[in-house]
Amino acid sequence: MEFTAKTIAEFLQGEIEGDPEVKVTKIAKIEEGMPGALTFLANPLYTPYIYSTKASIVLVNKDFKPEKGISATLIRVEDAYKAFALLLELYVKSKNDIKGIDELAFIDKTAVLGENIFIGAFSYIGRNVKIGNNVKIYPQVCLCENVQIGDNTVLRSGVKIYNDCIIGAGCILHSGVIIGADGFGFAPQKHCDFKKVPQIGNVVIEENVEIGSNTAIDRATLGSTIIRKGVKLDNLIQIAHNVEIGENTVIAAQTGISGSTKIGRDCMIGGQVGIVGHITIADEVKIAAQSGVGSSIKEKGAIVQGSPAFQIHEYQKSYVVYKQLPELRKQIIEFQQEIKKLKEDLLKKFM
Amino acid sequence: MEFTAKTIAEFLQGEIEGDPEVKVTKIAKIEEGMPGALTFLANPLYTPYIYSTKASIVLVNKDFKPEKGISATLIRVEDAYKAFALLLELYVKSKNDIKGIDELAFIDKTAVLGENIFIGAFSYIGRNVKIGNNVKIYPQVCLCENVQIGDNTVLRSGVKIYNDCIIGAGCILHSGVIIGADGFGFAPQKHCDFKKVPQIGNVVIEENVEIGSNTAIDRATLGSTIIRKGVKLDNLIQIAHNVEIGENTVIAAQTGISGSTKIGRDCMIGGQVGIVGHITIADEVKIAAQSGVGSSIKEKGAIVQGSPAFQIHEYQKSYVVYKQLPELRKQIIEFQQEIKKLKEDLLKKFM
Amino acid sequence: MEFTAKTIAEFLQGEIEGDPEVKVTKIAKIEEGMPGALTFLANPLYTPYIYSTKASIVLVNKDFKPEKGISATLIRVEDAYKAFALLLELYVKSKNDIKGIDELAFIDKTAVLGENIFIGAFSYIGRNVKIGNNVKIYPQVCLCENVQIGDNTVLRSGVKIYNDCIIGAGCILHSGVIIGADGFGFAPQKHCDFKKVPQIGNVVIEENVEIGSNTAIDRATLGSTIIRKGVKLDNLIQIAHNVEIGENTVIAAQTGISGSTKIGRDCMIGGQVGIVGHITIADEVKIAAQSGVGSSIKEKGAIVQGSPAFQIHEYQKSYVVYKQLPELRKQIIEFQQEIKKLKEDLLKKFM
Repeated sequence: MEFTAKTIAEFLQGEIEGDPEVKVTKIAKIEEGMPGALTFLANPLYTPYIYSTKASIVLVNKDFKPEKGISATLIRVEDAYKAFALLLELYVKSKNDIKGIDELAFIDKTAVLGENIFIGAFSYIGRNVKIGNNVKIYPQVCLCENVQIGDNTVLRSGVKIYNDCIIGAGCILHSGVIIGADGFGFAPQKHCDFKKVPQIGNVVIEENVEIGSNTAIDRATLGSTIIRKGVKLDNLIQIAHNVEIGENTVIAAQTGISGSTKIGRDCMIGGQVGIVGHITIADEVKIAAQSGVGSSIKEKGAIVQGSPAFQIHEYQKSYVVYKQLPELRKQIIEFQQEIKKLKEDLLKKFM
Repeated sequence: MEFTAKTIAEFLQGEIEGDPEVKVTKIAKIEEGMPGALTFLANPLYTPYIYSTKASIVLVNKDFKPEKGISATLIRVEDAYKAFALLLELYVKSKNDIKGIDELAFIDKTAVLGENIFIGAFSYIGRNVKIGNNVKIYPQVCLCENVQIGDNTVLRSGVKIYNDCIIGAGCILHSGVIIGADGFGFAPQKHCDFKKVPQIGNVVIEENVEIGSNTAIDRATLGSTIIRKGVKLDNLIQIAHNVEIGENTVIAAQTGISGSTKIGRDCMIGGQVGIVGHITIADEVKIAAQSGVGSSIKEKGAIVQGSPAFQIHEYQKSYVVYKQLPELRKQIIEFQQEIKKLKEDLLKKFM
Repeated sequence: MEFTAKTIAEFLQGEIEGDPEVKVTKIAKIEEGMPGALTFLANPLYTPYIYSTKASIVLVNKDFKPEKGISATLIRVEDAYKAFALLLELYVKSKNDIKGIDELAFIDKTAVLGENIFIGAFSYIGRNVKIGNNVKIYPQVCLCENVQIGDNTVLRSGVKIYNDCIIGAGCILHSGVIIGADGFGFAPQKHCDFKKVPQIGNVVIEENVEIGSNTAIDRATLGSTIIRKGVKLDNLIQIAHNVEIGENTVIAAQTGISGSTKIGRDCMIGGQVGIVGHITIADEVKIAAQSGVGSSIKEKGAIVQGSPAFQIHEYQKSYVVYKQLPELRKQIIEFQQEIKKLKEDLLKKFM
């Protein structure tokens, strides 16, 4: 794609200052601008870069007053940041504007397909799968029997969804995401070996959920593992069987949540956190990265840290002393000697 | 599949109380029962739900005495839990009863295939691969040269197995499992760069092993990385080159085991545990979640926690004091003042 | 492949002691040698094994003097370890000597392919992809629009690379690696929900980088996530958007690096480490396994541990005291009593 300053200015209802015919093909940060790139200036801290940027076009606020010469063509708009964000979205949309069903995909004849969808090469759509409108399925995806995919959802290359799982509308599942593998359930037997407990539930993901690369969400033993609407999961996260995650909760990379635990809504959970099974985390709870949560958190909005985790300010106070422990031990040894000496002195005086 | 209460009762040798013609197509928890579902009541704590469940059929123990009216059809059996587990297994078996070789799979002409197998679309079976009887290989699996798969083993969609690796009978490998990638071995060179150490061993997985989604097991530098029979590995686990894991050991999600470490049999290792390389863990050891094990554990049955890990009760006692550290420091400062004052007093009295 | 002792000795310019016609087909450790295997003896600690090994051929140093009879054929060379390493490399090279484009691969007609390449079945090569010479792409790889792959690079089965990402020459990406998925960026909205921030940058991986199974590297919001030349990443690592990792830095499995953090060159980072976003780590820094780094490390060559991490020796001293905390608390309680008693004694004496 190639656009002139004139086309962009007309679209944004902005005013051009410079060459209206200059063309751009990409988007860049102002400090990394190169010929052919469009960028923007919104944060005053970045103003110095506008005099040296090699970008061809810079979006600026209407009231921007240059103090020196600028080689780039300027487009003056009401709000440079918003205008840039708008262009970004259009750019991303145009990038992802693919449709059609590749002839190298396999689609079972019992599958029900919506309108305006894309299915890439080597993807496998199994029996009784239902796919909504405007869905995009990249190459090498596998949807097993009875899977349902809501409208406008995007499944990137290599996503695998086991039978009977349900994905809502407007979701994005990145490459390597595995939905609905068997939960980790085994019954101990006499001779120290284990018997597999059948995992016959499913996973239900509501609308507007985004799931990062290589994250795994296991199916329930019975019933459903549930990810509520608006949840955002980063890469390499582990969600065990029968977990439920409340609306709009955000979880950073490499965190693991054990079986049957229920997380509230609007929580923020840092990276590499571990949460044990069969507990409940209240709404709006924040958990610091690398924490280990071993028991239910009942207080709405609590902020915790540590392994096992407790109130974050208490944790941090303890950690400050932790760093001084060798010093503290030294003091205690000195006390021992001083007290001993005091006793001896007292004794001496009264012998 | 659809079954009547009559068919199920005959199969289980149970007695029907209610409509023998009522039909079920799925399985549910008693508290989530819906029309068309079969459920069971075994744990007395769940008894209240039997009066309100919307399930069509409930399996109950022979001696169950209802205190109110029940709308569901009951099937009375010797042991409701065992009967339900039996039905579950049949259900899972029927779900997975697939066979045949998809014409969209690639199978090298030198591969040796057992009887009664399933190979899904877009799977790649390389040179000299040997596949046992009743094996199920879902779509998009890759088996490189010389791989061997034992009888009855299941490889879910997207499993990748590098050349020369051996998988035993009765195993289940979930989607995204990678077996036999190169171990992480590099020799430092003069200019701070590294030279790859060739990794020419393999991975050997014995029978009845289950491996969770996106778990990675690296091949040995020389010899074999070995997973002994009955081992259960959860999702997103890292097993480095030349590791050996003893029989029936169970490891929870996101744990990592470094190179050449040998884990005993019947161990239980929590989630997000890290174990350094070149050490030995005795049989029946238990390691708490998020622990870091930095040296060999020689005592059979030891239970450890912490990073670095030590005896779990000692760890927990220390953690209790850790939480009180700011208080402790305050006391120490007070002592300092009291001792100082005592000394002054003593001095004053005898001056 | 099958080689006689004679062929190997000629190649290595070594001297045979034993049967020049004995044949080997594989490579083994001396303590695990079996008939048909070649092994070597370099480390004197392993000398006892040479008298019992069942290997058919053993490479030994020129000056090796046996103290008993040896059944294997010996090949005497200048440096047994180097000779073995050379054979290993040849072995690996011959193992991986595959080329040709499988007719079951999909290659867009706009893609530009180098010479002497391999592309396996069910791989997808998208629009405007550029592939260098001698590149090996195993089955079921996905390269989206505009991806570039440098000469001699190897992409194992199941690698997925999103649009516009650039991989340098001589790299190895293992199965399940995901390059260029969207960074984890969301703008909070009024009603506790989140709006996706478009991620339109890319990932740039320089030459001679090796990346382990199921590792995920996210694309930049704007600009590039950059992995400099010679970097070695183990399995299941998370690299967030806009991160930069300096030359020859080595990172162990399951470590996570948050957005916009810049890691120096020649660093060594242990497994399961977490590093927060928007910080800088100096060159040659070492970070112990399971540490959490919460702020920039400015000192070149610093060695840190803990969560949050600090200087490793200080950490270890603190941890020693941590283990003694219950004992320490007991002492403090005793002091309290002793001081109390001292005070009383003093008081008594002077009443």
